[in-house]
Amino acid sequence: MFEFAADVDPPYYAVIFTSLRRREESDAYEQMAARMLGLAAKQPGYLGVESVRDPSRLGITVSYWKDLASIKAWKAHADHLVAQELGRSRWYEAFRVRICRVESERSMSAIAPTEP
Amino acid sequence: MFEFAADVDPPYYAVIFTSLRRREESDAYEQMAARMLGLAAKQPGYLGVESVRDPSRLGITVSYWKDLASIKAWKAHADHLVAQELGRSRWYEAFRVRICRVESERSMSAIAPTEP
Repeated sequence: MFEFAADVDPPYYAVIFTSLRRREESDAYEQMAARMLGLAAKQPGYLGVESVRDPSRLGITVSYWKDLASIKAWKAHADHLVAQELGRSRWYEAFRVRICRVESERSMSAIAPTEP
Repeated sequence: MFEFAADVDPPYYAVIFTSLRRREESDAYEQMAARMLGLAAKQPGYLGVESVRDPSRLGITVSYWKDLASIKAWKAHADHLVAQELGRSRWYEAFRVRICRVESERSMSAIAPTEP
């Protein structure tokens, strides 16, 4: 069952990462992306992530953080720096990263689906 | 060719709409979603949209706006209110809407793809 990230009250911070993958398929990319999500989840101030990529290779990943200092520390993490360089040189045709302050939110809650 | 939305300098505003579609397919949904994107694009303060939905029915749509007043006016637009009600009653299993202030950004620019 899907669960929204960042179950805390605003204000908190969001990093919106919009990216267009290159055309080549790559197991190495999938492995690195999964590893980075796992590593991000261990960082101080991490509040969760929501991530979608469609068959046209366009993706939006939003990670949520307690404060700007947490975002800055994760950006400078050694393993993440390696991934960022690979992203530029090998995996992405284009991307944009936006750092945002979440000021308010509203929801319609997930209902447990009747099928798995 | 994909183009990122909101080609202005921060600060500006983002509405992150994360949603889980219900299982049923619906042409009516696709039509309404396309109509709402078209209508949003005509509103004062609109700066663009980036939207992705994957085969698991999870979607992230981020619309960008000049200021909070623009977001508030679009939320209260009569046709949009109808769409919001249909979203709650018929199309979405769950969603979360977050209103954010974009404070900074960085990019790797899109390069024209060699294939269409």
